[in-house]
Amino acid sequence: MKSKILNQGPERTIALIFEKGDDVVSLLEQYARDHALSASRFSAIGALRGAVLGYFDWELKAYERIPVDEQVEVLSLNGDIALDGDEPKVHAHAVLGRRDGSTVGGHLLQATVQPTLEVLLIESPGYLRKTCNRESGLALIDVDA
Amino acid sequence: MKSKILNQGPERTIALIFEKGDDVVSLLEQYARDHALSASRFSAIGALRGAVLGYFDWELKAYERIPVDEQVEVLSLNGDIALDGDEPKVHAHAVLGRRDGSTVGGHLLQATVQPTLEVLLIESPGYLRKTCNRESGLALIDVDA
Amino acid sequence: MKSKILNQGPERTIALIFEKGDDVVSLLEQYARDHALSASRFSAIGALRGAVLGYFDWELKAYERIPVDEQVEVLSLNGDIALDGDEPKVHAHAVLGRRDGSTVGGHLLQATVQPTLEVLLIESPGYLRKTCNRESGLALIDVDA
Repeated sequence: MKSKILNQGPERTIALIFEKGDDVVSLLEQYARDHALSASRFSAIGALRGAVLGYFDWELKAYERIPVDEQVEVLSLNGDIALDGDEPKVHAHAVLGRRDGSTVGGHLLQATVQPTLEVLLIESPGYLRKTCNRESGLALIDVDA
Repeated sequence: MKSKILNQGPERTIALIFEKGDDVVSLLEQYARDHALSASRFSAIGALRGAVLGYFDWELKAYERIPVDEQVEVLSLNGDIALDGDEPKVHAHAVLGRRDGSTVGGHLLQATVQPTLEVLLIESPGYLRKTCNRESGLALIDVDA
Repeated sequence: MKSKILNQGPERTIALIFEKGDDVVSLLEQYARDHALSASRFSAIGALRGAVLGYFDWELKAYERIPVDEQVEVLSLNGDIALDGDEPKVHAHAVLGRRDGSTVGGHLLQATVQPTLEVLLIESPGYLRKTCNRESGLALIDVDA
């Protein structure tokens, strides 16, 4: 993954271009840590050679895994980055498209790029913090934190 | 729903964090009215315990209702806010993900959050107005208005 | 298609409002050429009376065509514009919604609007260039170019 700043100012726009074989979630988390992102949002299109999506099971309080073992288009990939303690945390949801145009989507757990993923990330000067939500057990954005 | 301004300037970025039980459309409309939004766009991810989507029937000139009565991930939720007369009007389309990764989508008529919905809203200084489109009967954005 | 600038500054926000019968890809390309867009991103919602989507076949190195011959909601339409040589090149992926809420998606090859498509385009002051990727045969964004 390579990056390029497209706009300086209170909000910065950064293109993150992933290459074949790149692991999306770990590289996004790495970029977020390296650049201390505290309140960012992003959107992406491209293609993957495989992914694991998640569905949050409200009874089990855990993500059910949805493996996608085929070449798919990334039809939408939207997310945000907020602080969980001092660590930037990436939260992303994706809709993927198969050869026949049918779609599969969920919380993005893992994704491997092929041949490219074009992420436009906007870094805001403010910050967002996550706190543990008791009922779900998830760390959720808390604007009062 | 709580809000936090992430960026000041000609365009402001605002995080709107919805909580369990929040009704998305009515709270978005309320926020838009309270803050006199005249040209905004937004994108969101999160999860819902239920929703009603719509498909515009071009013959009947009315929305057919698509009820979604289960816990679903919000895979994408994109929209804009423009003025219809003096009132801000929210227009949003959503793709929702079920337990097996299958998707259902449409015009967002109603949605109840569980456990969270993270909306990033960008408020532009300009304005967009809607005027009634005769053929469809819908109020559509008209850049000359 | 008509346009309106919503925000001036280092990044400009422009509303592109497409009308019934407008061909999305050719008009977007035209707008990009006329305004010399070098690094833009966009997101849209609306409806179409038909479209042709694409799935990139990794073996054949070509797009398989997925025709959509019915009135559909544009649930998401995300993309970017980068330079391929001196020409702005539009890259967009879409998720479309049918009457029953089922979805179909892919790379946007062709789309005809009905009754409206609301595109919010953000033009960055930087530039992104595409170079030919040997393995796929596609022109991909190359931040070093």
